[in-house]
Amino acid sequence: MASQASISATELDQLVLASIEAKSNSYSPYSKFRVGCALLTFQDRVIVQGCNVENASYGLTICAERCAIFKAVSQGYRKFAAVAISSDLETGFAYPCGACRQVLNEFGDMEVILVKDKTSIKSTRLANLLPHAFGPSDLEEAKRS
Amino acid sequence: MASQASISATELDQLVLASIEAKSNSYSPYSKFRVGCALLTFQDRVIVQGCNVENASYGLTICAERCAIFKAVSQGYRKFAAVAISSDLETGFAYPCGACRQVLNEFGDMEVILVKDKTSIKSTRLANLLPHAFGPSDLEEAKRS
Amino acid sequence: MASQASISATELDQLVLASIEAKSNSYSPYSKFRVGCALLTFQDRVIVQGCNVENASYGLTICAERCAIFKAVSQGYRKFAAVAISSDLETGFAYPCGACRQVLNEFGDMEVILVKDKTSIKSTRLANLLPHAFGPSDLEEAKRS
Amino acid sequence: MASQASISATELDQLVLASIEAKSNSYSPYSKFRVGCALLTFQDRVIVQGCNVENASYGLTICAERCAIFKAVSQGYRKFAAVAISSDLETGFAYPCGACRQVLNEFGDMEVILVKDKTSIKSTRLANLLPHAFGPSDLEEAKRS
Ligand SMILES: [Zn+2]
Ligand SMILES: [Zn+2]
Ligand SMILES: [Zn+2]
Ligand SMILES: [Zn+2]
Repeated sequence: MASQASISATELDQLVLASIEAKSNSYSPYSKFRVGCALLTFQDRVIVQGCNVENASYGLTICAERCAIFKAVSQGYRKFAAVAISSDLETGFAYPCGACRQVLNEFGDMEVILVKDKTSIKSTRLANLLPHAFGPSDLEEAKRS
Repeated sequence: MASQASISATELDQLVLASIEAKSNSYSPYSKFRVGCALLTFQDRVIVQGCNVENASYGLTICAERCAIFKAVSQGYRKFAAVAISSDLETGFAYPCGACRQVLNEFGDMEVILVKDKTSIKSTRLANLLPHAFGPSDLEEAKRS
Repeated sequence: MASQASISATELDQLVLASIEAKSNSYSPYSKFRVGCALLTFQDRVIVQGCNVENASYGLTICAERCAIFKAVSQGYRKFAAVAISSDLETGFAYPCGACRQVLNEFGDMEVILVKDKTSIKSTRLANLLPHAFGPSDLEEAKRS
Repeated sequence: MASQASISATELDQLVLASIEAKSNSYSPYSKFRVGCALLTFQDRVIVQGCNVENASYGLTICAERCAIFKAVSQGYRKFAAVAISSDLETGFAYPCGACRQVLNEFGDMEVILVKDKTSIKSTRLANLLPHAFGPSDLEEAKRS
């Protein structure tokens, strides 16, 4: 049972704090909107932190969530238990953008934890945020067809 | 009543055909996976067609849906009634990727029509495909805070 | 002779004006930085206009140059004589970002015209702006190797 | 004298090897084209490795160079001495795509080392690969104007 309990209470606490801390390296001179992210790998239970990195050509900006996942993949991880996301938004929770949902989804479902502050968090699953995802299996189908 | 009936039966037929036709201009030498899209503007009821345009640097590839919406915006449109999507996928429906959901969502909700072939289609709303979207209002909140 | 004279004086005038006009449809609520682009197709000598289209998730923003080329490809064009670029920058010329240079380069070399205002323009070739480009032929090599 | 000698011979050797090693974590199921990157930070002289990470929606793919720089920024680095790039290309050197040139350029000029194999390398400066770059200063001009 408890099949949804993908992370422990201690891991949750650590992830939340790590996502808040990750904001400190945000490079966001254009939006002035700092975002931090902490990703928990499935194997090894390592926390990988990411932040948003903006660009003068706005379109080459990367979000904190994608920063974290690219970093984790470059360290050899391809399966994730959870991701926590923190931002400077004070009035609500900053959900991941569609591009980040798509990139996270490439590596399967995971828990998504939205952090307003240490004591105010919300939790959902990636599959709920990207229903009917277009994923790796669709391309395999295309090649077979 | 009929509040969801954002498009007429004739418009639906035209959109479906236009999305299939749009595949013919697809530039997809790398994936060999053609996608076509037809967007119906809210004002003027104009159909704008798009296709996927790939790039040797995979990451600069654009999907058919974004191609269509960028084109429509460049023609002065910013509100849309519906979008139809066709692909070479034979075994199922190709749902839009997360990036396209995000870019469409910038301009509000709309009907999303998934086309397998002329006689096999499926319909949903963009809001169902991108729940809890991060959108323009979130950035306004950030600036106020 | 005159091998570089890829466009006529009349075409140049039309392109410059079209790139300035194209700014009027720019959707740039975040940067407040409007950019317009006009692309001249090689066949048919058609002018295709594009503008920048921004997104709340900065990274999904598209530049005017890519907007124009995606639009042109969706209309069946794959070879271009020239591209003109206009912006709200008053103190200099806005050169295309690296992503746009890469996407334009997918379809071969072309003239690049930078427009400050109707009477102040500068001209160069795409190949000068993206030396040693990574292009379609590199991927073919990779497949052969 | 030696003003261009931004890195030592030992650093060069380490960077070249690190870029080759970085390919091993490449996630490239679609292109089958592995790329590895090693970035040398200006302060601390730390080597940060990156690899390409592809996505079923081709357009959300990231290159090895951007993977490395996002990772380095998330670790607090914003100035770089050099970047080395390795790929599976056997017949030549894989130069960075325009998007990567643009993202690297956000953090200033640096040495770019192209690696075919341990004993066959080529070196240039980022500024040579992205002449007339559109960078942070252009946006500042726009805001002043
Ligand atoms: Zn995002
Ligand atoms: Zn898409
Ligand atoms: Zn650009
Ligand atoms: Zn690249």
